[in-house]
Amino acid sequence: MTGYMTDTNLGNIEEVLIVANYQKPEAKPLSHSIQIFLEEKGVKSEVFGFSGKADLVCERNYDLAITLGGDGTVLFASRILAPLNIPILPINLGNFGFITEVSKDDWQNDLERVLKGEVNLGSRMMLSFNLKNDASKRGGEELCGRAMNDVVISGSGISKLVNLMVHLDESEHIEYKADGIIFSTSTGSTAYSAAAGGPILHPEMNAIILNPICPFTLSHRPLVLPSESELRVEIAEDQRTELTLTVDGQLSYPLKSGDELFIRKASSAARILYSGSRSFYEVLRAKLSWTGGPE
Amino acid sequence: MTGYMTDTNLGNIEEVLIVANYQKPEAKPLSHSIQIFLEEKGVKSEVFGFSGKADLVCERNYDLAITLGGDGTVLFASRILAPLNIPILPINLGNFGFITEVSKDDWQNDLERVLKGEVNLGSRMMLSFNLKNDASKRGGEELCGRAMNDVVISGSGISKLVNLMVHLDESEHIEYKADGIIFSTSTGSTAYSAAAGGPILHPEMNAIILNPICPFTLSHRPLVLPSESELRVEIAEDQRTELTLTVDGQLSYPLKSGDELFIRKASSAARILYSGSRSFYEVLRAKLSWTGGPE
Amino acid sequence: MTGYMTDTNLGNIEEVLIVANYQKPEAKPLSHSIQIFLEEKGVKSEVFGFSGKADLVCERNYDLAITLGGDGTVLFASRILAPLNIPILPINLGNFGFITEVSKDDWQNDLERVLKGEVNLGSRMMLSFNLKNDASKRGGEELCGRAMNDVVISGSGISKLVNLMVHLDESEHIEYKADGIIFSTSTGSTAYSAAAGGPILHPEMNAIILNPICPFTLSHRPLVLPSESELRVEIAEDQRTELTLTVDGQLSYPLKSGDELFIRKASSAARILYSGSRSFYEVLRAKLSWTGGPE
Amino acid sequence: MTGYMTDTNLGNIEEVLIVANYQKPEAKPLSHSIQIFLEEKGVKSEVFGFSGKADLVCERNYDLAITLGGDGTVLFASRILAPLNIPILPINLGNFGFITEVSKDDWQNDLERVLKGEVNLGSRMMLSFNLKNDASKRGGEELCGRAMNDVVISGSGISKLVNLMVHLDESEHIEYKADGIIFSTSTGSTAYSAAAGGPILHPEMNAIILNPICPFTLSHRPLVLPSESELRVEIAEDQRTELTLTVDGQLSYPLKSGDELFIRKASSAARILYSGSRSFYEVLRAKLSWTGGPE
Repeated sequence: MTGYMTDTNLGNIEEVLIVANYQKPEAKPLSHSIQIFLEEKGVKSEVFGFSGKADLVCERNYDLAITLGGDGTVLFASRILAPLNIPILPINLGNFGFITEVSKDDWQNDLERVLKGEVNLGSRMMLSFNLKNDASKRGGEELCGRAMNDVVISGSGISKLVNLMVHLDESEHIEYKADGIIFSTSTGSTAYSAAAGGPILHPEMNAIILNPICPFTLSHRPLVLPSESELRVEIAEDQRTELTLTVDGQLSYPLKSGDELFIRKASSAARILYSGSRSFYEVLRAKLSWTGGPE
Repeated sequence: MTGYMTDTNLGNIEEVLIVANYQKPEAKPLSHSIQIFLEEKGVKSEVFGFSGKADLVCERNYDLAITLGGDGTVLFASRILAPLNIPILPINLGNFGFITEVSKDDWQNDLERVLKGEVNLGSRMMLSFNLKNDASKRGGEELCGRAMNDVVISGSGISKLVNLMVHLDESEHIEYKADGIIFSTSTGSTAYSAAAGGPILHPEMNAIILNPICPFTLSHRPLVLPSESELRVEIAEDQRTELTLTVDGQLSYPLKSGDELFIRKASSAARILYSGSRSFYEVLRAKLSWTGGPE
Repeated sequence: MTGYMTDTNLGNIEEVLIVANYQKPEAKPLSHSIQIFLEEKGVKSEVFGFSGKADLVCERNYDLAITLGGDGTVLFASRILAPLNIPILPINLGNFGFITEVSKDDWQNDLERVLKGEVNLGSRMMLSFNLKNDASKRGGEELCGRAMNDVVISGSGISKLVNLMVHLDESEHIEYKADGIIFSTSTGSTAYSAAAGGPILHPEMNAIILNPICPFTLSHRPLVLPSESELRVEIAEDQRTELTLTVDGQLSYPLKSGDELFIRKASSAARILYSGSRSFYEVLRAKLSWTGGPE
Repeated sequence: MTGYMTDTNLGNIEEVLIVANYQKPEAKPLSHSIQIFLEEKGVKSEVFGFSGKADLVCERNYDLAITLGGDGTVLFASRILAPLNIPILPINLGNFGFITEVSKDDWQNDLERVLKGEVNLGSRMMLSFNLKNDASKRGGEELCGRAMNDVVISGSGISKLVNLMVHLDESEHIEYKADGIIFSTSTGSTAYSAAAGGPILHPEMNAIILNPICPFTLSHRPLVLPSESELRVEIAEDQRTELTLTVDGQLSYPLKSGDELFIRKASSAARILYSGSRSFYEVLRAKLSWTGGPE
């Protein structure tokens, strides 16, 4: 999208990874067409196709990844490829999404331009998290990971109400009684956080949204914190519910009373290619019905 | 509370049931004191004490029930006693609640007045629900029950998003993509529905609130429907999450794709005694911090 | 719309009033066509055409009124015709509205059915208000009127913050610091009150919504009160802003510190004819974009 | 407050300006006491006292300003002193505010520390605006100014609904139908923008909040934009209401159809001294009732 390019030095593209969501019927034939197209240009390519849950282990350092799917496929790919600094060209199979603007009908044009280094490259901040729990305190491995959209702590079962204490830079803290808390990036601000009443952040904003879900205290509002904030969440003892940690709505892990979750800006941002055909406001208008209104 | 008495013919009180939440330390000694007090007045009494989950089966037709606990104890007692038309005097152990206004220090005065038939008797609409599922369609027993505050359908697990279709009087329907839906009474409007952004309804209002939790469509708003509305919720097929039916935040049952939940006004209302010491607005001010604001 | 008919005894139609918003170009020719149509059926008719502000003084007791315009024309007509118990058939020139569902292309069919007494007749509660101010206290005439959608008190000028005390049934009161307060009917719940975060009420609901505009106290929520509530608003002394009373967004009157505004259910409801072609939920879906959402 | 100091080089303090809100009775005697205190330390001082509207023209380049009043006095002083880079020590007469944390009882300690250069100095982004209208286009002077909290465009009169088009960096635009729009800084996020449903931004955040007031389109949400954003608001032709531009809730100017308002980050930030006695979260808890909740 126009307005938030941050770097454009894409480098020479010699090897491409295609990440294809095989649950979409067009994904397989399209990945084949793209491979042929790339081969003709003398560019090597590999396809990673998946259905449902997938474990993409990226061994080679590709110069570019192309995702075939929706926003969810980009979320999945970004968590793995961003740390390797691999730029992503998202091609959308279906309606265009908040992130995926290149349509499956225009991909040739856009890919051609990418190979020439002409397309815009935006940088989207990601979150990193790590969990200190009983196991990790006894020397076990610490759970850690990245999120493109959001990291969510929520309760389930009969009482969903959870008690959480969020520490900010170890100098302040705030208590929440809520169904859960969403920690969201700007990219994630149009996803679950929006449904929970959160503000929309421009993709260029480097910030962390702290958005309680159905907070018990009616005066609570979503908080927007600097991207440098170091957050620590204490899962209070004696919860009457089971807690879950959810990443980008795609991965989930159980949490326990006494666990501590650390959340901060990830060291590397996702590098997303876009054609510039749709602006930020246009996406909001189209996806969130921001035109018109009752009349 | 003043303003919403609806009937005051309490009748002669000869037998009293005391429902005591034994998780509160004062509950046991207080129920003992009340029994002595009643005995002196020639009134018989029985105590039902419980800790955590409880199955109160009410065999005798008491003239009055006294609850010792918080709002939760009144919710529990109302679901069982309302169908038997037994009025409830809620005595609060702790801070006063939205429903429980009689304090544990004033109970003698208020109980004295109740025995003389002087205290106000308010009527609070309840919801009834019944579930048609595979088992009931094959001739099994149908799950059914009542709610004083709310009936909630919600998802859990990695994706909490549920797809529900709500039919209104079998002539209209509306689709929801959300974390869940709250069906709330006026009494429940200050509870979970408020946390989910719902309006506050005066306890006298006979109405059903239909409030989606974190709806995907940002233009959604809570709906307030006439109390006579007959609602049917279809749990859409192919949910990617487990669904739960929760009643008053106290009881829960699993739901499955294809289940149908029917919700309507319960045939009998809860009859709650109150001293009139606190008005509706005073409760809102005290419990929801409606005074002051930032200055 | 289906579901909320309340009476259908329309009586014999011998004389019709056509209320036409001449700002819409089709209004004049259409009112002419309707007159001819009615004449052929032996029904007398008169046209009241207006542009912008209008003073319709209704001297004859018509058996039916037909409005040509949008929802605004129905609001205008209802305030004058509801007290005379004259039913209204709203024909919509433009997109269909929340109230006006009969399209300008289908009017013949619908009018034919109305003359036969076949169309549904819904009843929509209205508000009445009267203002006690310096002038009225000194014996002057009291300002009073009716509203179909809403009665709004709001501040203007540099500081819009107003201090208001709302008394409920003279037994309770609540203070507001806000940009203003909306008192809305169920019909008005989809209008200004919705923009101010209010719930949507089914048109059949008899209720008064009390919805503060941008309240200073962040825990405030819209209140839904029984239709029998008698509300008195005290305009506090020493306001730092000018106050305005606005009725249905169409009429406005200045308010002063010390004024008292009384609001209650109007004695007569508006009687609106509808074809039943669109349900309540369908209107919400179409007008408020309640389908779809981001995907 | 801890956590958002940005510079601490206060320099030598030889001349102090005291800005005193004389509407607060303690302001006059306190400014006298401070002058004596400063004189004893060999520091020159001058008092600018005001009641209601004031025109502070700052001719000398003071090394420090002390405000005596509430948050409003700091807003007033910042607009004038920030461009001159004069740091402000806000002393609060009354309850502590969002910005003013130094109490009138502790001032000696804090001022002593300021003179020693020991107190923290926070930097708070401000907005600048300038208005292109008929007069300025014909060569007249352009209205321009700064805001510490917010710049608000709003309608008044019978219909408050305004039509505005906001351009972002001249490459995108979005249309609003609303009662108005708030452009707020992080500092202003706890003021009017919060009342209009906006998020709370950490004072360290450099960002511009674009928050529509009662937007007609129910899916609208507040937007948070990068501080570098260049915003241009077009006041659409044919408004049915009078429009007002309000700055920090303290200054107001009329707007007309066809006017263009430019809003961007001000070149100089306000430099606010604080003792560090209260953290950001503590202020939210205390001022917005973020503890407790209903129970």
